[in-house]
Amino acid sequence: MAWTPRMSITSVRQFDRGDLDELFRLTERIRQDPPAFRGLAAPYVLATLFYEPSTRTRLSFEAAMARLGGHVISTENAAEMSSAVKGETLADTVRIVSGYADVIALRHYEAGASDVAARAARVPVINAGDGAGEHPTQALLDAFTVAHYRGGLDDLVITFVGDLAYGRTVHSLALLLTRFRGVRIRFVAPERLAAPAWLVGQLEAAGIDVRPVATLADAAAESDVLYVTRVQTERFPSGLDPADTTYTVEPEVLDRLPPHALILHPLPRVQELPPAVDADPRARYFDQAAFGLYVRMALLGRALGVL
Amino acid sequence: MAWTPRMSITSVRQFDRGDLDELFRLTERIRQDPPAFRGLAAPYVLATLFYEPSTRTRLSFEAAMARLGGHVISTENAAEMSSAVKGETLADTVRIVSGYADVIALRHYEAGASDVAARAARVPVINAGDGAGEHPTQALLDAFTVAHYRGGLDDLVITFVGDLAYGRTVHSLALLLTRFRGVRIRFVAPERLAAPAWLVGQLEAAGIDVRPVATLADAAAESDVLYVTRVQTERFPSGLDPADTTYTVEPEVLDRLPPHALILHPLPRVQELPPAVDADPRARYFDQAAFGLYVRMALLGRALGVL
Amino acid sequence: MAWTPRMSITSVRQFDRGDLDELFRLTERIRQDPPAFRGLAAPYVLATLFYEPSTRTRLSFEAAMARLGGHVISTENAAEMSSAVKGETLADTVRIVSGYADVIALRHYEAGASDVAARAARVPVINAGDGAGEHPTQALLDAFTVAHYRGGLDDLVITFVGDLAYGRTVHSLALLLTRFRGVRIRFVAPERLAAPAWLVGQLEAAGIDVRPVATLADAAAESDVLYVTRVQTERFPSGLDPADTTYTVEPEVLDRLPPHALILHPLPRVQELPPAVDADPRARYFDQAAFGLYVRMALLGRALGVL
Repeated sequence: MAWTPRMSITSVRQFDRGDLDELFRLTERIRQDPPAFRGLAAPYVLATLFYEPSTRTRLSFEAAMARLGGHVISTENAAEMSSAVKGETLADTVRIVSGYADVIALRHYEAGASDVAARAARVPVINAGDGAGEHPTQALLDAFTVAHYRGGLDDLVITFVGDLAYGRTVHSLALLLTRFRGVRIRFVAPERLAAPAWLVGQLEAAGIDVRPVATLADAAAESDVLYVTRVQTERFPSGLDPADTTYTVEPEVLDRLPPHALILHPLPRVQELPPAVDADPRARYFDQAAFGLYVRMALLGRALGVL
Repeated sequence: MAWTPRMSITSVRQFDRGDLDELFRLTERIRQDPPAFRGLAAPYVLATLFYEPSTRTRLSFEAAMARLGGHVISTENAAEMSSAVKGETLADTVRIVSGYADVIALRHYEAGASDVAARAARVPVINAGDGAGEHPTQALLDAFTVAHYRGGLDDLVITFVGDLAYGRTVHSLALLLTRFRGVRIRFVAPERLAAPAWLVGQLEAAGIDVRPVATLADAAAESDVLYVTRVQTERFPSGLDPADTTYTVEPEVLDRLPPHALILHPLPRVQELPPAVDADPRARYFDQAAFGLYVRMALLGRALGVL
Repeated sequence: MAWTPRMSITSVRQFDRGDLDELFRLTERIRQDPPAFRGLAAPYVLATLFYEPSTRTRLSFEAAMARLGGHVISTENAAEMSSAVKGETLADTVRIVSGYADVIALRHYEAGASDVAARAARVPVINAGDGAGEHPTQALLDAFTVAHYRGGLDDLVITFVGDLAYGRTVHSLALLLTRFRGVRIRFVAPERLAAPAWLVGQLEAAGIDVRPVATLADAAAESDVLYVTRVQTERFPSGLDPADTTYTVEPEVLDRLPPHALILHPLPRVQELPPAVDADPRARYFDQAAFGLYVRMALLGRALGVL
């Protein structure tokens, strides 16, 4: 096992298949009876150390700690400590905060920041997103949602739609899929937002059948999971028409998507996922967000050594 | 009864006379022995979701949850989630947050936002002020303060002073007074800040004796409650002299105010209520603020179904 | 004893020798077994009322309250309540917040603010730094660190290095040293940042042997404690070369510093304390920061009357 109690979590690469199976079993136990886990972290303190605001992620971590009965100290203003005037390094800040808290959830604007922090800290650090780097807890909750509804992740066709170039969520989840057997990955994206070559290379090296598909409707027809992401139209000064429905879950897409499939989205969503889809029984993105609470309870419990 | 456990609270209009009597009895029990209510909300999580800062109101809700032994997750930065870049709707945000928390206190800059939120949420939403709309918990704590000191709200003369045009606190409290018998309302305001016609119409339709009075001293002479509000002088580029004492609680006003009367203010106060008034035994505005804690404990306890 | 339970703490001047001995004994008990103090503050609420961000200090107070099992309500945005629009005085804000909380930790940008607050509040106020005024909890944790490692503060030579003109930490700690016997103080600072005459005067009046030393290496040779502070180079438009190593803990300084000495720093540190020093067994600044938690647990426990 690569994932042991009291360990920092900075990357999905730390998790082997056995770790993931164990995490999903633990998360499922929590999901079935959250009050049974109340009080486990009662004496402990989580510090949410955010160098940029990410309210949803922060609240999810803090709620997870509260559900375990623990305490939270929090800042979305951590950059103030490394301001030009004060000039403190991330390593120093983390070392000090690890004198106050038993576990740190770190959000940072620079890739690799969570590794720097994990080395400096005397307590476990959980990466809550580091710039263009990773967002492992998001990928883990995405994967858990699939495992919950489909019984596992082996032998599935998973289609990623939208911004595949910059979306670290897509990268982290796709890398996580290399831990499973028989996974096929389909990519649907505007040319400028295609999956990067390094990612495709790593997936192919891991033996995954990966290929682009031209339209969302065609991809949907063969998908077990439709993982939709937001196309940030501000990346397109003039190149992409936001009204372009190629990457929108239109009625035709729903028609062609198999009845057993799941529609997921890391949220927030904008036009790519119209509110009309919410009533579709295959739409599971709000459950996915809610499951994030249980995954983070499991991760915090392990980081604290109480689960 | 219109007000039932686990219910959202978006407007004072939800409360009938029986509800108010019940709320005030419950609040009075809490006020007399707060420690007896400790631990009631121990397993629960309140999310304070503030789209604009309102530190006093937020701290009051959070202290109320703490006094019940519960946990809090908090943001004054909620607008970040609906920023132009991310583009999330209030309904989506609230649906996600209701996966983390058991009750949401929402502050928003748009009237009606709390109704939108209450429809989207899977948990009760309490309106902590929505733009020019309502601020029901403030009105309820104002009314409780009168009930506490005067034994009830029937047959009282209540004078509202200051900004009656824009002050949602005044509107919410005045509407709440329609639930009581024999209430007479007096308005003292600069012409530009007079009570709006819709409000006067609704009060008259409810059978309330309502009329404007030219000076604060004249109104004070017949008042059981003097409800003073801040005149935001920034609304008067040139029209109102901030030194105008017509709307200030001057010694003459105190002289003419009956000995049994109450002076209330939603706070913050500026020149309309000089610090010299604080020592007057009729000045109850700091108690009023403190009572807000007990009213919010009662409301949270009911929203969680534990009271 | 000048320091009694339920007392506000606004200045180090409140503490006589007996108080300090008692505080250090209590802090040492907490340090040895923090879990034994868990739950002492369970029913209580701390408000951290910060008029300017100071994330480290705020998190330290909040962690201390959490370790005692208590609740926290928090704002780094307190200035919003006294904004031009709302115009609330500090006294009013504090009076309101003391209706919500059992103890207030106040950070303010104006010297003397904590005294104003302590007079207005109905609960104890702890000064968490007020402008150019005091930062008593920092001075107390500094002194505790020395007492912990050296068995006491009597008969020590303590050298202060860096910005001695504006550093309120230096001023507060130096004043605290007047409570001990046989203390000798050495100052090493650029001329423009020399210790102010009022401070030197007060130290000499208290019988302390105090004098400036030209170089850090010379001072180090006779020091039991090297208290290094940051030179804020933004104070030197052209006067000080940030590369000037006169005030940097260079290898030569370490060579001449006695083996039993302590190197302390209130942190954040920049170039004056190179990371290479961290491995030196005399470097105790991260322990010093961590001890701040225990000192604040002791102070909160006393302010709440539970210790």
